[in-house]
Amino acid sequence: MKKRSIVIIGGDKRQRYLKEYLTEKGYDISSYGLFDWDDDTDKLKGMIGEDSVIILPLPATRNDKTIVMPFSKREISIDRLMSLLCKNNLVFGGIIKGELLSRLRETEIPFVDYYDKDFIEKNAVLTAFGALKILLEHIDFALPIGKYAVTGYGRVAKETTALLTALSCDVTVFARNPSQRDDAILKGCYAKELTELSCEAHEFDIVINTVPCHIIGEEILSNMKKGCKIMELASAPYGLDFDLARKYSVDVIKAFSLPGKYTPKTAGEIIGRRIATHLQKEE
Amino acid sequence: MKKRSIVIIGGDKRQRYLKEYLTEKGYDISSYGLFDWDDDTDKLKGMIGEDSVIILPLPATRNDKTIVMPFSKREISIDRLMSLLCKNNLVFGGIIKGELLSRLRETEIPFVDYYDKDFIEKNAVLTAFGALKILLEHIDFALPIGKYAVTGYGRVAKETTALLTALSCDVTVFARNPSQRDDAILKGCYAKELTELSCEAHEFDIVINTVPCHIIGEEILSNMKKGCKIMELASAPYGLDFDLARKYSVDVIKAFSLPGKYTPKTAGEIIGRRIATHLQKEE
Amino acid sequence: MKKRSIVIIGGDKRQRYLKEYLTEKGYDISSYGLFDWDDDTDKLKGMIGEDSVIILPLPATRNDKTIVMPFSKREISIDRLMSLLCKNNLVFGGIIKGELLSRLRETEIPFVDYYDKDFIEKNAVLTAFGALKILLEHIDFALPIGKYAVTGYGRVAKETTALLTALSCDVTVFARNPSQRDDAILKGCYAKELTELSCEAHEFDIVINTVPCHIIGEEILSNMKKGCKIMELASAPYGLDFDLARKYSVDVIKAFSLPGKYTPKTAGEIIGRRIATHLQKEE
Amino acid sequence: MKKRSIVIIGGDKRQRYLKEYLTEKGYDISSYGLFDWDDDTDKLKGMIGEDSVIILPLPATRNDKTIVMPFSKREISIDRLMSLLCKNNLVFGGIIKGELLSRLRETEIPFVDYYDKDFIEKNAVLTAFGALKILLEHIDFALPIGKYAVTGYGRVAKETTALLTALSCDVTVFARNPSQRDDAILKGCYAKELTELSCEAHEFDIVINTVPCHIIGEEILSNMKKGCKIMELASAPYGLDFDLARKYSVDVIKAFSLPGKYTPKTAGEIIGRRIATHLQKEE
Repeated sequence: MKKRSIVIIGGDKRQRYLKEYLTEKGYDISSYGLFDWDDDTDKLKGMIGEDSVIILPLPATRNDKTIVMPFSKREISIDRLMSLLCKNNLVFGGIIKGELLSRLRETEIPFVDYYDKDFIEKNAVLTAFGALKILLEHIDFALPIGKYAVTGYGRVAKETTALLTALSCDVTVFARNPSQRDDAILKGCYAKELTELSCEAHEFDIVINTVPCHIIGEEILSNMKKGCKIMELASAPYGLDFDLARKYSVDVIKAFSLPGKYTPKTAGEIIGRRIATHLQKEE
Repeated sequence: MKKRSIVIIGGDKRQRYLKEYLTEKGYDISSYGLFDWDDDTDKLKGMIGEDSVIILPLPATRNDKTIVMPFSKREISIDRLMSLLCKNNLVFGGIIKGELLSRLRETEIPFVDYYDKDFIEKNAVLTAFGALKILLEHIDFALPIGKYAVTGYGRVAKETTALLTALSCDVTVFARNPSQRDDAILKGCYAKELTELSCEAHEFDIVINTVPCHIIGEEILSNMKKGCKIMELASAPYGLDFDLARKYSVDVIKAFSLPGKYTPKTAGEIIGRRIATHLQKEE
Repeated sequence: MKKRSIVIIGGDKRQRYLKEYLTEKGYDISSYGLFDWDDDTDKLKGMIGEDSVIILPLPATRNDKTIVMPFSKREISIDRLMSLLCKNNLVFGGIIKGELLSRLRETEIPFVDYYDKDFIEKNAVLTAFGALKILLEHIDFALPIGKYAVTGYGRVAKETTALLTALSCDVTVFARNPSQRDDAILKGCYAKELTELSCEAHEFDIVINTVPCHIIGEEILSNMKKGCKIMELASAPYGLDFDLARKYSVDVIKAFSLPGKYTPKTAGEIIGRRIATHLQKEE
Repeated sequence: MKKRSIVIIGGDKRQRYLKEYLTEKGYDISSYGLFDWDDDTDKLKGMIGEDSVIILPLPATRNDKTIVMPFSKREISIDRLMSLLCKNNLVFGGIIKGELLSRLRETEIPFVDYYDKDFIEKNAVLTAFGALKILLEHIDFALPIGKYAVTGYGRVAKETTALLTALSCDVTVFARNPSQRDDAILKGCYAKELTELSCEAHEFDIVINTVPCHIIGEEILSNMKKGCKIMELASAPYGLDFDLARKYSVDVIKAFSLPGKYTPKTAGEIIGRRIATHLQKEE
């Protein structure tokens, strides 16, 4: 059976590498809004065949109205996009929710959200390498000499900590969950109750936050070692109030959406293999 | 509120360390069948108070009739045990199923199976260290010089592989699931479809199996490098027919129940913290 | 006995941290040309007491005429400096040679070159962390996914390779010396004769050169994988002709004097401890 | 030019693997005293051709009288051996000294001591893997949970520490030399003056000694944590008086000649490559 044509709409470097990857795999691919030279709206209509596969970015949309398209001068609305699709298409996208989700459902267009549990685990590993890169940019000492505090011990914390301990760093994990503290100890970290950070803060050169709520307050900020920096890996509302940090003149290193910035090739290929596997099953 | 008395019944070295741990934490503990000197059946009746906490081993039973009691000359049946318990007791045990499970339910005695998802993750890490120990016993070359094949990429495989790559070994993961292969690649392994092992078998010095079904057949055994060994980490029915391996004169290193043998102190303390946390919540 | 006063003349961030370090240790320190605000030549004469300890940068001079003073608008000649010193002073400097060396000898002013075998080893470790930082900046894939070639296996190569293998990377060392190849194998690398690089070049994503002579010629450059980059860690005359690389459109990442740029605090403290140890022996 | 015949005399598992290795390389090899079936003294005379290459074990002799021959029921004296050799032979041996050295010199028989600086470095790596194996045998906790003290920071200490830190262990190096302490810190260890061990001893679960003189006295032994073990990696006169340790009921794990016991294949191949390289240069 012949392979279905693929149209990549929007996206960042990851989708560019994804396009490369699927092209090498022999798929017939076109893209829209992925390069400044390829976004002609009329062209788009022509690109999408009746059984084409559509690949949307990660996230597919940020404003619940338009598809994320950082490389393009134009933009395309969810509305316009839906007007071009029918039941025979197949849509892949990252974090499909809100307007996009309900429109896909009501028009009964089959779709796959590739930002699932499996992908999130891989994304955490990629995030950890981005965090290591940014960390090395912000320290003026040899990595193993520093003392590191990591708040929380979810996926991103585990992977980031794993890189630090692999490089023989001294890492203390501060977590509420006693079972997670045991996990951290088994991985060669020290582990303490989150509440202990306030009195121990002055011990650390870097605090890496992975908890998306204000756990780092004045008590902690006021007790930090001079020059200590906080690396923020969590998403909004973040682990602290950035203005408060400024008040205590504590530098906050904001490290967001790292996989797309620092490991887009690997991220794109992972998405590509995921989509190829799905399409092969179909054939 | 005063702490409830604890009675540990049966178990291996892990329960001995568990007893030590809980004693240090100030619990009033007695044990039965954990040391040859402490198993007097009449004594047992006296030990169990009306609101005592009972701790059974991991696994609690192997034959669905008696509690596992390797250090004791006697044994105690589930029947006899149940006759000594009432609704005010609380039972902790590892892998509570079959007869024991139904009896606990029908007599409405509260119980906690501490062999849960959280524990299984930690157990995988302990298993990996046991596997490393056994591996070092069975090779006559420096660890990083060997080429290692790991079949499957579940918890135990991931943790064992992590130790090998931390020591700069060359590890190839053979797994059916493409998403797991991506995980292995991100961790610095090579990854291939399980089916490829048969033609690549001769490449490896050690094959570490973690898949509990016969995936290693004649094709693979007949293609192995002279002196290659298979380390079996999976449970019954195991990754291969051991007689078949003998026929091809391939050594099989049977590495079972490693945490209890090689890291009983850590295992016992993990169980202890788990139980202590539970009891503290009660208080 | 009272501590001798110390004057730091010239230097980069390392000397700034060195100043901080020795200040904390209670030494009476002044600096010249280390901050734009502290270079008043007349002031210098006043700073240098008859038994002062003088600390020169690493390297002390690049042109055999003036002391290295990147943060200063002025400069000071070796001539002028020597005119301010006498036999009771003590001079520390990095790579003391040429004019400076002969002048110190003829005027019999005691001196210590802190850039010795011990320091060079530590510098190699610091260089490796700088190399890791730069490497992470120049790749768009997750570190362990790449294939790395390292040419040479001296100190810098060993330390850089150690960081890569600690992070589970696939590293092949190309070295002429069979004994060094054995060392590399024991550390979990592959090792090949340097001559084999030309036919294997296309295998690698990054080639890290540590050999200070043109070992990377057209044969290798013409056989490289598209997008492969060369990281140059060696000193002049370098491992290749940079124009030649441009001709083959191979990117060369020039990574020079990394410890001063990326780990100045650690470098400064190492120099500081070295000097403090020396002075304590004197007392 | 035809390859010279090789006769391996005495030795342990390393020489058996060495024989295998050189046989594969196409050398004409015979052995004496390396297997119980091959030690017929008369046969020996026949084996040694006028230009044969002789390979002696490591060490060549322990008693300055006979060649080390653990697998043989017989033995051969240096005297008898020398009577069979002439100037056209070439002798390889490990630690050639005393009687053997002087006899070789006076009879002007060319010889190479393969236990040189290069080999000692590799031997340290092999020793470290043996130490890791023995360590895993003697602990009942997961490796990263322990606190480790390492005394001295020479080759063996560095390599052993490197394996422990690679596995995320908490290692403190106690060394007299401040420059070595800086090296340890750069490798992610804590480092302290050797004299501090006495007051800190109780902190550690394992003390690994690499210093061949009695640095571990009553003060330290009396301050150790209950159950703490000392792993002795140093050679005579060792880091402590073993009877004294017994008095304080501190277990001492004697870990001697590890490469021959645990990594003989790698050791044998390293010796083999060394010898092959030498012989190739000759041709």
